Amino acid sequence: MLKTTTKLLVSAALIAGIATSANAEKTFKWKLATTWGSTLTPFIDAPTNMAKLTEEMSNGRLQIRIDAANKHKAALGILDMVKGGQYDMGHSASYYWKGKDIDTLPFTTMPFGMTAPEQYAWFYYGGGMELMKKAYAKHKVLSFPGGNTGNQMGGWFRKEINSVEDLKGLKMRIPGFAGEVMAKLGLTVTNIAPGELYTSLERGTIDALEWVGPGMDIKMGFHKIAPYYYTGWHEPATELQFLVNEKSYNKLPKDLQQILLTAMRVSAYDMYIQNYDMSATAWSTMEKEFPNIKVKTFPKEVMDAMKKANDELLVEKSAGNPLLKEVLDSQKAYQKKARKWTEMSDYLYLKDNL
Amino acid sequence: MLKTTTKLLVSAALIAGIATSANAEKTFKWKLATTWGSTLTPFIDAPTNMAKLTEEMSNGRLQIRIDAANKHKAALGILDMVKGGQYDMGHSASYYWKGKDIDTLPFTTMPFGMTAPEQYAWFYYGGGMELMKKAYAKHKVLSFPGGNTGNQMGGWFRKEINSVEDLKGLKMRIPGFAGEVMAKLGLTVTNIAPGELYTSLERGTIDALEWVGPGMDIKMGFHKIAPYYYTGWHEPATELQFLVNEKSYNKLPKDLQQILLTAMRVSAYDMYIQNYDMSATAWSTMEKEFPNIKVKTFPKEVMDAMKKANDELLVEKSAGNPLLKEVLDSQKAYQKKARKWTEMSDYLYLKDNL
Repeated sequence: MLKTTTKLLVSAALIAGIATSANAEKTFKWKLATTWGSTLTPFIDAPTNMAKLTEEMSNGRLQIRIDAANKHKAALGILDMVKGGQYDMGHSASYYWKGKDIDTLPFTTMPFGMTAPEQYAWFYYGGGMELMKKAYAKHKVLSFPGGNTGNQMGGWFRKEINSVEDLKGLKMRIPGFAGEVMAKLGLTVTNIAPGELYTSLERGTIDALEWVGPGMDIKMGFHKIAPYYYTGWHEPATELQFLVNEKSYNKLPKDLQQILLTAMRVSAYDMYIQNYDMSATAWSTMEKEFPNIKVKTFPKEVMDAMKKANDELLVEKSAGNPLLKEVLDSQKAYQKKARKWTEMSDYLYLKDNL
Repeated sequence: MLKTTTKLLVSAALIAGIATSANAEKTFKWKLATTWGSTLTPFIDAPTNMAKLTEEMSNGRLQIRIDAANKHKAALGILDMVKGGQYDMGHSASYYWKGKDIDTLPFTTMPFGMTAPEQYAWFYYGGGMELMKKAYAKHKVLSFPGGNTGNQMGGWFRKEINSVEDLKGLKMRIPGFAGEVMAKLGLTVTNIAPGELYTSLERGTIDALEWVGPGMDIKMGFHKIAPYYYTGWHEPATELQFLVNEKSYNKLPKDLQQILLTAMRVSAYDMYIQNYDMSATAWSTMEKEFPNIKVKTFPKEVMDAMKKANDELLVEKSAGNPLLKEVLDSQKAYQKKARKWTEMSDYLYLKDNL
C-alpha cells in the first residue's frame, strides 16, 4: 500500500512537472507576410533564413510560415496586416508607408544619406533603434532591420546625361521619395509593374529606370537595351524591415523572444553580405558579356540640383512633423561624424587600391 | 484496480518522457579563453555578447564562462588550449598562430587585402569558410569569424614620412606579418607590451607604432605625443576569431549547436558595427581637442615599396605550403571581383559625398 501511495504521489508530481514543462514547451505557429515574390533573391532569403534559424534554435517551438506576395495579394499592405493581427510578422521596407505615416520614411535609406556600415552604426549604437521604436509605437508594431541591399545604382538610361537640361522631360521609373526628387528636376516619374519594365524600356515608353544593382538587375536584362549605368545617389543603403505584431511578441517566453530577435538581426546582416557577393559576381559577368555598358556618375551640376531638390523636399515634409524632423536631424548629425571616419578608413584606402 | 493499473502505466510513460526530456534539457557549462583583457572594448564585447545571447536563447542550457587573459596567463596560447580541451572555446585572432601553422595566416586580414564587407562576402559566399575549415581541421578545432575592427590606421609617427628613405632605421612597434613587410623596408621592428607603449613612444625608444584605430587608440593617448596619423594599408579588415573544440561541439544537441553558431555570427558582425561607431566618435573628439593631429597617407613611393615587399613575402611563404597558396589565390581572385563592385558602389558615391 505504501508503495502504491508513493507511486501515486510520484505520478502526481510528474504530472505537475509535465504541465509546467508543457507550457514552456508550447509550440508557436506564426505567419509572416512579405512584399516580395517567392523567388526574389536575396530579399526573400532574409525572412526565409530568419524562419529557418528560429525553428532550428527553438527546436521547433517557434515556427514561422512565409507567405509571399502572390499568396496574400497585398504586397504593399504589410504594415496594415501586421498591425491588424492577420499576420504576426512582416518583411518589407519602411519607406513604403510614407504615404500613411511620414515618420516611417527615413528608416530605409535617404538620398545622399549614410552607407550600410554607417547606417547600421546609427541604428545600433547611434540612437536609430530607439527612434524607430518611437515611430512604430503608435502602430503597436515592432520594427527591426531586415537586410541591406548596399549602395543601389542610379539606374539604366538609354542616353547619356550631361546636364540638368538632359533630364527634363525624360520618362523614368523611379518610385518613392527619390521619384519626388526627380520630379522636381522636371522628369516625368512613372511606376510600372516589374514584369512590364523591360518592354517599356525597349519600346521607349520610358527612357530610364532604376532597379537595385547588378546582383538583382542582371535577371531583368536592362543592360541589353540601355547601356548607360549611372552610379547611386538616392539609396545608399536600403535597409529592408522586419515587422512584428506587439501582442504576438509579448506572448512568447523570454528565450523565444531572444531567438527571434537574434535570428532577425543576423539575417539582416547576412542579406547585406549576400547581395554584396551577388552584385560583385553579376557585374563581373555583365562587364565581360556586354563590354558596351558604360558606368557613369551624374555630372556635378546634376548632383547639385538633386541635392537641392532633396533638401527642399525634406524641409517641406518636416514642417509639422516633429518626429520626422527629430529622426532626420539625428541621421544628419550621425552621418557627419561617421563620414569623416569612413573617409579616413575605407575611402582613402580604396583610393590607393582600386 | 483498473484505475490503479492505468495510473501506473501512465506514470511509467511519464517517467520515460521525463528521462528523454531531462537529457535534452541537460545544462552544458563551457569555458572560453580570450587573448584580451577584461576591459578591452570592443574586442572583449564580442565573446561577452555571444555568451549572453547563447545563455538567453538556450534558456540557460548552454552557459559559457569567459576567462580574460589575466586569468589563464596565456594570451597567445588560445589555439593550444582549445585544441587540448582545457577550454571549449577561444576568442583570438587567426594570424597569431602563423608561426606554428602558416596556413592560419590569411583568415584575419592581409596587407592591401579586402575591406570588411568584401571579406565577409568572401567568407560566407565566396568559399572562405570552407577554406578556413580545411586549415583548422588538422587541429580538430572549428574556426569562425569573431568580430571585425574595420580598416585599421597605419599608425602614429613622430615625424612625417616623405620617402622610403625616411622609413629606414625607424624603430616601430608593428607586430605580425605587417611587421615583416616593414622590416623589409629597413625599419627596426619591435614588439613592446601595451602598457609600456606610451612611455616608449614619448621617450623615443620607438619612433612610431600602430595600434588599431581612433576608437581604441584614444585611450592610449598616442595622439598627444606623435601627431602624424597615417591611414591604413596593412590591416584593411581585421577579423577576430572564435575557436571551438570539435569534441565539445559534437556533444551539443542540434538546437544548441545552431544557437551557438548564430550567436557567434551575429556578435562578430556587431563588433564591426560597434567599432565603426567607436572610431567615428573617438575621431570626432580627437579632432576637436587636438587640432594639431595630421592625417596622412603614405606617399605613392612608400606604398609601392610596401606592396612589392608584401608580394615577395607571400611568394616566399607560399612555397611548399599548397593550402596557404590556395587560400591566398582564392582571396586575390575574390578581391579583384569584389573591388570593382566596391568602386562602382560605395567608392564613387563617397567621392561625391565627403
